Amino acid sequence: MEKNTPKKRLRELGIRFGDHTPGTYNNITDVPGVKVGHYTLEEDQPVCLRTGVTSVIPADGNLYVSPVYAAAHTINGYGKSTGLIQINELGGIETPILLTNTLNVGNVSRAVVDHVIAQNEDCVTVNPAVGECNDYRLNHIRTESITKEMVFDAVGNSTSGEIQTGAVGAGTGMVCFGYKGGIGSASRIIMLDGEPYTIGALVLSNYGDINELMIKGVRIKPYYSNQESAEVKGSIIVILGTNIPMTHRQLLRLSRRAAFGIARTGGRCAHTSGEIVISFSNGNRRLRKSNAQLQTIRTLQEDGDTTKLVFNAVIDCVEESIIDSMFSARTVKGVEDTVIHELPIDRIMQDYGEQLLED
Amino acid sequence: MEKNTPKKRLRELGIRFGDHTPGTYNNITDVPGVKVGHYTLEEDQPVCLRTGVTSVIPADGNLYVSPVYAAAHTINGYGKSTGLIQINELGGIETPILLTNTLNVGNVSRAVVDHVIAQNEDCVTVNPAVGECNDYRLNHIRTESITKEMVFDAVGNSTSGEIQTGAVGAGTGMVCFGYKGGIGSASRIIMLDGEPYTIGALVLSNYGDINELMIKGVRIKPYYSNQESAEVKGSIIVILGTNIPMTHRQLLRLSRRAAFGIARTGGRCAHTSGEIVISFSNGNRRLRKSNAQLQTIRTLQEDGDTTKLVFNAVIDCVEESIIDSMFSARTVKGVEDTVIHELPIDRIMQDYGEQLLED
Amino acid sequence: MEKNTPKKRLRELGIRFGDHTPGTYNNITDVPGVKVGHYTLEEDQPVCLRTGVTSVIPADGNLYVSPVYAAAHTINGYGKSTGLIQINELGGIETPILLTNTLNVGNVSRAVVDHVIAQNEDCVTVNPAVGECNDYRLNHIRTESITKEMVFDAVGNSTSGEIQTGAVGAGTGMVCFGYKGGIGSASRIIMLDGEPYTIGALVLSNYGDINELMIKGVRIKPYYSNQESAEVKGSIIVILGTNIPMTHRQLLRLSRRAAFGIARTGGRCAHTSGEIVISFSNGNRRLRKSNAQLQTIRTLQEDGDTTKLVFNAVIDCVEESIIDSMFSARTVKGVEDTVIHELPIDRIMQDYGEQLLED
Amino acid sequence: MEKNTPKKRLRELGIRFGDHTPGTYNNITDVPGVKVGHYTLEEDQPVCLRTGVTSVIPADGNLYVSPVYAAAHTINGYGKSTGLIQINELGGIETPILLTNTLNVGNVSRAVVDHVIAQNEDCVTVNPAVGECNDYRLNHIRTESITKEMVFDAVGNSTSGEIQTGAVGAGTGMVCFGYKGGIGSASRIIMLDGEPYTIGALVLSNYGDINELMIKGVRIKPYYSNQESAEVKGSIIVILGTNIPMTHRQLLRLSRRAAFGIARTGGRCAHTSGEIVISFSNGNRRLRKSNAQLQTIRTLQEDGDTTKLVFNAVIDCVEESIIDSMFSARTVKGVEDTVIHELPIDRIMQDYGEQLLED
Repeated sequence: MEKNTPKKRLRELGIRFGDHTPGTYNNITDVPGVKVGHYTLEEDQPVCLRTGVTSVIPADGNLYVSPVYAAAHTINGYGKSTGLIQINELGGIETPILLTNTLNVGNVSRAVVDHVIAQNEDCVTVNPAVGECNDYRLNHIRTESITKEMVFDAVGNSTSGEIQTGAVGAGTGMVCFGYKGGIGSASRIIMLDGEPYTIGALVLSNYGDINELMIKGVRIKPYYSNQESAEVKGSIIVILGTNIPMTHRQLLRLSRRAAFGIARTGGRCAHTSGEIVISFSNGNRRLRKSNAQLQTIRTLQEDGDTTKLVFNAVIDCVEESIIDSMFSARTVKGVEDTVIHELPIDRIMQDYGEQLLED
Repeated sequence: MEKNTPKKRLRELGIRFGDHTPGTYNNITDVPGVKVGHYTLEEDQPVCLRTGVTSVIPADGNLYVSPVYAAAHTINGYGKSTGLIQINELGGIETPILLTNTLNVGNVSRAVVDHVIAQNEDCVTVNPAVGECNDYRLNHIRTESITKEMVFDAVGNSTSGEIQTGAVGAGTGMVCFGYKGGIGSASRIIMLDGEPYTIGALVLSNYGDINELMIKGVRIKPYYSNQESAEVKGSIIVILGTNIPMTHRQLLRLSRRAAFGIARTGGRCAHTSGEIVISFSNGNRRLRKSNAQLQTIRTLQEDGDTTKLVFNAVIDCVEESIIDSMFSARTVKGVEDTVIHELPIDRIMQDYGEQLLED
Repeated sequence: MEKNTPKKRLRELGIRFGDHTPGTYNNITDVPGVKVGHYTLEEDQPVCLRTGVTSVIPADGNLYVSPVYAAAHTINGYGKSTGLIQINELGGIETPILLTNTLNVGNVSRAVVDHVIAQNEDCVTVNPAVGECNDYRLNHIRTESITKEMVFDAVGNSTSGEIQTGAVGAGTGMVCFGYKGGIGSASRIIMLDGEPYTIGALVLSNYGDINELMIKGVRIKPYYSNQESAEVKGSIIVILGTNIPMTHRQLLRLSRRAAFGIARTGGRCAHTSGEIVISFSNGNRRLRKSNAQLQTIRTLQEDGDTTKLVFNAVIDCVEESIIDSMFSARTVKGVEDTVIHELPIDRIMQDYGEQLLED
Repeated sequence: MEKNTPKKRLRELGIRFGDHTPGTYNNITDVPGVKVGHYTLEEDQPVCLRTGVTSVIPADGNLYVSPVYAAAHTINGYGKSTGLIQINELGGIETPILLTNTLNVGNVSRAVVDHVIAQNEDCVTVNPAVGECNDYRLNHIRTESITKEMVFDAVGNSTSGEIQTGAVGAGTGMVCFGYKGGIGSASRIIMLDGEPYTIGALVLSNYGDINELMIKGVRIKPYYSNQESAEVKGSIIVILGTNIPMTHRQLLRLSRRAAFGIARTGGRCAHTSGEIVISFSNGNRRLRKSNAQLQTIRTLQEDGDTTKLVFNAVIDCVEESIIDSMFSARTVKGVEDTVIHELPIDRIMQDYGEQLLED
């Protein structure tokens, strides 16, 4: 299998999206408390597996005891992600968010249950949040390949700071605009009342037609003719995280902006696309139990200027995260010797560099 | 036209709904800051008009400058109420809430615009909240009968304390379970963190089949055979108000409980029913403009015990408000000499008193 | 463990809900093509298990190749049911619908995947529909107790005609209004254009306060003081099936009427309640693949009279199904020797028989 | 006031969006039965009025008696459009769709009521569909300027074939990306089962930041520095029409694709944006009354290939309609001598022609 050479990230190449400044690592872990981990599964026998699981931990501490504020939004619902209904009813997430392939959602979901009840002795109900895309082009998806141990491993190795992106974890077998996609991430810093806050996105990209890719509005010609279109089973999961204190309704508004980031890359929201956005804020914490019947929280002042900062940061983060997932992925060979090539970055910089480097 | 003799309210007759204690007046104005006003229009020439407009002012002060928190929920959407989309996008209401008949929503809505821009010099956009039911059985509804002055009058005469219910204001021509319905209201006091808070409901009732009426679970036989069924154009608008500080999502959850109050009266949510719930909390105020980009608000701690208090109070208030709308209405004769009789309270107390007086 | 003596059903006792005539078996299998099966799990060692799985197969033939029309509606979303998003995006169901306990949704979901891919060689994506309630009061729910074989067994033994109800399958450990609940079902026949059509409901009942139970509007006093309230973790799943050809939007309207049936039993939609409705019609079939780009289907003419037939049948079926779940359940002793008593039918008939037998 | 010289349309300049062929007139009236009309109001005394009303009639015949199938979708709900709730409950539209300015929705709505009841003697309920954007930058919006006669005029002069676009009707005072916007339209022909079908869009454009405009992915630099940003009160109404027979759910899916067309022009869905999509199909007609209780309709086969045709046509139509609204608008001077310049087409063709003319 191909080697995972670290690549230059978009900013190192000089490609910037939008006006806001990224966080230290330009990924979702720039949001204080957020951690990301992966388990990557690549085997050739007995069946070809190119898949995995990715964990996004939205905050420090016991999430089951003090969930983060959250909202879920469905752009197109041809998808099997779980947990969304309760996220919207209660406005919170009480587990790590796991990403994996379509047919392994059930077993991964059960693994999340095991993870939470192991830590919470009295727990008799918990709502696992699991997102998915379909990696059948490279992975023998019909196999129940993701074990509980892999899920525990991804959660357990989750870290802040630098994270792996591209063909890693749940992104191992994903295809974006006909090129190798997978995990991508970006972040932005916003000043509110004189204090810095962070917004981050992490995507699992697996959608798009090779003839439709746009980077910063520049339409990129197809570099390969023999790659299967990603349209048929394509999807994208977007996770938005922030430490800006926001209510459920505000997080829902944030979530609805993700489609504008997807569209800016050329996405057209195909019939079979499971396009799901899960947003969380750890700027307030919900409490499973409390002696007080009323709580004090903080919330965003929703005028045009403040929301413009926030909404634009979200759109920029989503756009950059998707492009990042392709710029950081390597070529992967999978089932039936299918090869999905990585984006030919050198040729793209040669052909479109001038436009891509513009501000 | 019939005389509007004040009647005994349900509690004076000994009929109680649920465990919580009502507020002083047992109506929505028990919520501090809430005011209610009516304009009743009854004319026989040139066409028979039995209609009107009812105003519910959700809080003190300039609502346009500092809106209340709010949410809107549609149980069945065969209805023409306006303003609901923005209420849910921003989680707030910025005008008095007006109730009227179906075909006069447009002109009443424009009157609300006039009311708000008169008070706010710079206002170039405002979202009027107007609910409606169809009073065509008693009222010549095709006539554009409600003038701006009537709307201003209803808003202007809105008061706290005791309010008129029954065949008054927007309720003048409404029919509920085949009997005269219209405006009804109730309230409950809840203790949270040792302090009293109030939840109130006000309904515009205009739905139900005469064979289906239930009061406190007691099925009431039809006392008239010649009354036209209210099923065909029936609807109900429920306004829920509280000073408990709640977010949009929490108010939406409150709103969804209204259906359970409606169902307890025998309502079955007919095809043509516009069943709309508008909920507001003046326990926090939104700010149109603010120097601060983050605000501090209070919110309900959503555990099982606290929400049970709140949700049950809502269901009890809605149930009682609907029955109140019938117990306080008088017989009305309208278009083509149609008579819609008031509920025969004496006979009901005689036939079902024992069960109705049970706790 | 207690013996499962067949009990008289409600109609045999003379208790009828609404005007419409039930189908032959008065359950959801009266809808042509619908089958129901159970796997009941009752073990005392090593942990006390009182749980199971119930299968509702919505139509004959390969559901993955030709899904039924369907819609899903959330009354209160404190629940972990899966598959709802895609049901609403595509308006269809492509698997058997499985019911089980809250923490076993993931593994049951994966079992449904295995069931479908075993039958469909090319299947690389499928959307399992799994509903749940929480049986922790009687069952050691933290155990991953439901195996794939149990799911396959429930699906495999699904039959038309008579079905088991009460403390069986997914209903084994459920509690309704403080009494033993679980699976209940009912059906109604409706004439449309001179032809008979069937509407059926099947519920998994697990909600309600012992002080709130109503049967046909009659409030039933609590017969036990020592039973734990079902409020805290209560939920209900309602499955509505019909052969009336209906579109997604029409099935959604149907689904929203279920709340009115629940409310008629005294349900108040508690905070922690996962109240989910899944509706399907096998009167039209969707096609995964087709040479034609346009299809001809039939749909309900939505005027007041026709929808009244349909909506009222739904409300009656849901109300009767819930009461049926209690009338057919036996007493069950579970974890920590907790005993949840069956409804004392003889005493109820003695105390309330006259009212319950009224039409 | 400026003269309305007819301009070359995009296709005449050689600018094409997407692969599908437009209809004869490349606007929404290419959909058989659809008509469009305008009333343009430009007065300088006593206040400066730059506003109007636009009518889109979705089909031939009496819409109240046989409504078209329809769906409404809210991208961002900071808007006052009316009728959307009932459109989604019943899946139909029963009136002409009117577009106007924000504060005149109420009176225009009442005018639609008058229009419908004049034609339907027994009508006692009707659901007017009225969309709006805010033209306060050029128009004295606080004035109740739109009279019933203007609405009747716009409806009455609605025609098929060629239509006026740009600063006309409801578009008279609108601003798009800082340039003069307003009404734009486009259409596409799609072959289904060997027969041609048409999809059309008509937009009322009033959103966007002058620094964000993209045409076919090409970012257009701001040509004016002194134009007020359109961000603050910006909005867009999208009307999608087709004769492809589609159900409500399918029209809702269509509607959700509009956001991808908006995003392709650089739209970012600002806080104050009322972004509303109303979609209709006249390929089936609903019937207010019918002797039959079941109807036969046709519907789209929703596989990946067929939906790709339809969804991409929608996205292309929306993108082109928005750009069309700017390319066809003239410079308008309005309140307080504010001048909103038309897009400098010659300079754009000079600066970006090569890229814009690419396929």
